Amino acid sequence: MSEPISILEQTYQWERETALLESTQATLEWDERTGMPPAAGAYRAEQITYLSGLIHQRRTDAAQADRIDSLVQWANQQPDNEDLAVTARYLKRNLVRRQKLPLDLVQAMTKAIVLGQQAWSQARKAKSFADFLPCLNTIVKLKREEANLLAIDGSAYNGLLDEYEEGANEAHLQVLFADLRKQLVPIVAEAAEATQKRGTILVQPTIPIEAQRSFNRLVAEQVGFSFDAGRLDETDHPFCTTLGPRDCRILTRYFENDLLSSLFSTLHEAGHGMYEQGLPAEHFGLPLGSYASLGIHESQSRLWENAVGRSLPFWQWCTPQLQKQFPGLFAQATPETLYRYTNSVSRSFIRVESDEATYNLHIAIRFEIEQQLISGALNPTDLPDAWNAAYMEYLGISPSNHAEGCLQDVHWSAGLFGYFPTYTLGNLIAAQWMETIQQSVGDLDSLHCRGDFRPLLEWLRTNVHQHGKRFTPGRLVERVTGRPLSAIPFVKYLTQKLTATGLLVS
Amino acid sequence: MSEPISILEQTYQWERETALLESTQATLEWDERTGMPPAAGAYRAEQITYLSGLIHQRRTDAAQADRIDSLVQWANQQPDNEDLAVTARYLKRNLVRRQKLPLDLVQAMTKAIVLGQQAWSQARKAKSFADFLPCLNTIVKLKREEANLLAIDGSAYNGLLDEYEEGANEAHLQVLFADLRKQLVPIVAEAAEATQKRGTILVQPTIPIEAQRSFNRLVAEQVGFSFDAGRLDETDHPFCTTLGPRDCRILTRYFENDLLSSLFSTLHEAGHGMYEQGLPAEHFGLPLGSYASLGIHESQSRLWENAVGRSLPFWQWCTPQLQKQFPGLFAQATPETLYRYTNSVSRSFIRVESDEATYNLHIAIRFEIEQQLISGALNPTDLPDAWNAAYMEYLGISPSNHAEGCLQDVHWSAGLFGYFPTYTLGNLIAAQWMETIQQSVGDLDSLHCRGDFRPLLEWLRTNVHQHGKRFTPGRLVERVTGRPLSAIPFVKYLTQKLTATGLLVS
Repeated sequence: MSEPISILEQTYQWERETALLESTQATLEWDERTGMPPAAGAYRAEQITYLSGLIHQRRTDAAQADRIDSLVQWANQQPDNEDLAVTARYLKRNLVRRQKLPLDLVQAMTKAIVLGQQAWSQARKAKSFADFLPCLNTIVKLKREEANLLAIDGSAYNGLLDEYEEGANEAHLQVLFADLRKQLVPIVAEAAEATQKRGTILVQPTIPIEAQRSFNRLVAEQVGFSFDAGRLDETDHPFCTTLGPRDCRILTRYFENDLLSSLFSTLHEAGHGMYEQGLPAEHFGLPLGSYASLGIHESQSRLWENAVGRSLPFWQWCTPQLQKQFPGLFAQATPETLYRYTNSVSRSFIRVESDEATYNLHIAIRFEIEQQLISGALNPTDLPDAWNAAYMEYLGISPSNHAEGCLQDVHWSAGLFGYFPTYTLGNLIAAQWMETIQQSVGDLDSLHCRGDFRPLLEWLRTNVHQHGKRFTPGRLVERVTGRPLSAIPFVKYLTQKLTATGLLVS
Repeated sequence: MSEPISILEQTYQWERETALLESTQATLEWDERTGMPPAAGAYRAEQITYLSGLIHQRRTDAAQADRIDSLVQWANQQPDNEDLAVTARYLKRNLVRRQKLPLDLVQAMTKAIVLGQQAWSQARKAKSFADFLPCLNTIVKLKREEANLLAIDGSAYNGLLDEYEEGANEAHLQVLFADLRKQLVPIVAEAAEATQKRGTILVQPTIPIEAQRSFNRLVAEQVGFSFDAGRLDETDHPFCTTLGPRDCRILTRYFENDLLSSLFSTLHEAGHGMYEQGLPAEHFGLPLGSYASLGIHESQSRLWENAVGRSLPFWQWCTPQLQKQFPGLFAQATPETLYRYTNSVSRSFIRVESDEATYNLHIAIRFEIEQQLISGALNPTDLPDAWNAAYMEYLGISPSNHAEGCLQDVHWSAGLFGYFPTYTLGNLIAAQWMETIQQSVGDLDSLHCRGDFRPLLEWLRTNVHQHGKRFTPGRLVERVTGRPLSAIPFVKYLTQKLTATGLLVS
């Protein structure tokens, strides 16, 4: 037995050491996006590129590949050792994916997406799709090659999806999105019209950023984000990153005239952060210590942002906090006003600013277009036309420029194809969690209106967080909620909420 | 020629890549000492240890050692190529030092100083020397081994000194310190008595930290620290660190009732920072892009902290700034009061809080004791007695506990022997720079009282910063000031200042 144990230890040690480098790289990136001096960018890129190279070498190391194969054999011989089985399966899965990609393709892609993101950033500023097109052509060409090498069940797109959401499937998603679209389009039509009719119900006061900071911290702490093992900072594009098993950094952004924007960003990122803080620290760097999938991750952020943050009980707790923290500024506001204000529905161009009713339509458009880009049915040159046509068809609006059109998201410039659908999966999964929670935990509303979010977090810790990658995302959903993922709970949740806030009559 | 050029490029590339890792490690450490969440410490230590290991491997790489030997040969064949000569010489010098140290000694030392710093930190809190003694015994034992292996001209201590200050020499320092002590003791006696007689001349107002932050930033910017390529943050023990050729981070600390303490820390660290910002960025990671020595580094920090920050012209500029920034709080203060207040002399226990007159006596005590620890003349067990006796002899005071006695500095617990003397060298060199500057640049006072510090910084850039390690520290001083380092300019500077502030009659 001593030989296999030693191989096991070596394999785990190797993965943990890779995680040391990955989390170090995350620290460099966190610093880059928080307070790094302006002139330091070029050298920071060199540091990150160098670490990426070291990490890539480790991930494709031949000796580790051999050890992983031994682990798989050993796991087969010990069917009762579930931890080993899970770990061996995931390490092998990642290895197989990597082995399918030739080094020159990986290197060409790395270069293309560094240049792609720079070009995208400038093109977006200039609102010029032509400035981005050459890079997009290169990225799509390389991504098609990659997708063809990774193809699953004859679908190239599936090969990309699988990176972010194991087991997700193009055909299944097409059905899901078609169904969702059919149900959402009439809801959006009615609710957007009602929102417009209702007119202005709240004008947010001007609040200095410093005061917004302490309020955001207060809320993040209240919902359960640990500041002993985390920080809340400020950046241009909010995100969450993990620098170690007890070091999760969340970032929000502030506008003097929109406290609520920072608040929802904070709740969203705190949702991600609490998931990371709930993963088993002793398995950090190994599958059992890693998040299940991007869809599961997003189910946490959207749950805290929307199911909690845009609920009446939340505002019953939060409104007095606002009034206490900012004397006089929210004197007219009631929990009901804030509940209705934060659930308005409107047809708008920008995904990240969109409401719960329209959000998944933004994603459906991206999902449709990226499938066509990968299959070759759509040429990158024709992206703007396809984009604008889809917005007209799905939302009845047409962007006046590419910055609020097909250049708004960074994803494609960073080579992230197959990533967008996980946002919608997150929304659907969150609704399915909430349905189960309400059935099993009971009346959360009376807790939440007192600011007690601990039972909810406790449920998520027990049912989702602690498992890491023990279950595939689909299996996890089924195991916890008793049925496969569906759009039903989400549509029900949305309909109830929009009815309660007076935007739907049905 | 193609072969040598390729070797040259490979050698430089290797050093630059090592610098990528070193500056990444510095980023981890900066984050650890600024805002890292409390629970993240253990994993951060793992990240840093892992990177240290990678760096150590690279520094002792056999192929690089061979390339460096080729460089040395090639440099000998091209006597006119000064850049190559300097680079080859320094790389070889570092290589030779490293090759003298067996791996097991390096590893034992690494472990001893990690444990040593932890033990020291707790022992200092508990004011218990006994708690630190076992670690100190180990460190001193290992350090003696190391020193014997590195010995220069028959002096083990020289081998340690040489790490921080190339060419510095125990025998020469002994003469220097003896001379300095002889001159300082009567100055301190007279000035401390006069300070006491004079009584309180200023009580600092209570100022919120947030307001202190912006004032410190204003002053750092005014003296010339670039915030385009740097940051000013907050920590327990102020320091300066370089995360890249255009990324220098300085850190200060704040006390509500002592704005001036933060100001002098900021000026000190900005002095270090401006040196780093003045090194040639294109040579980052190579000798020509690195600071000349710790003594030269300290000459920059002490020059800005003391020769500038504790001068009358500085206060002529700064007092109105204080009054403008903090309306009403410094209404009674005049440039003269602040000049005198910031140049008071008193016999106190803590080195980092001591004034310019007593500071070098604190160093002289440490220099004397660490020589004896390394030679074996002093047993670590007897350190407290030796320390207290020296304080009584040099300063006429005796610490009431070890926290304000021999446990006050972190250095020895971190294995830093031969480091303390560079602080005094920095003071002496700073005074020698200033003497030369006043002769060559002319009347700086009339510029400084208007807040124009650019000509001074320009002089330092041209004469000191831009050379990196082109000259040994001794050679640099002689080249710029026209004579070897001596204590005369410092004693003259100090005497003049204490006479001007009314503390010396002589």
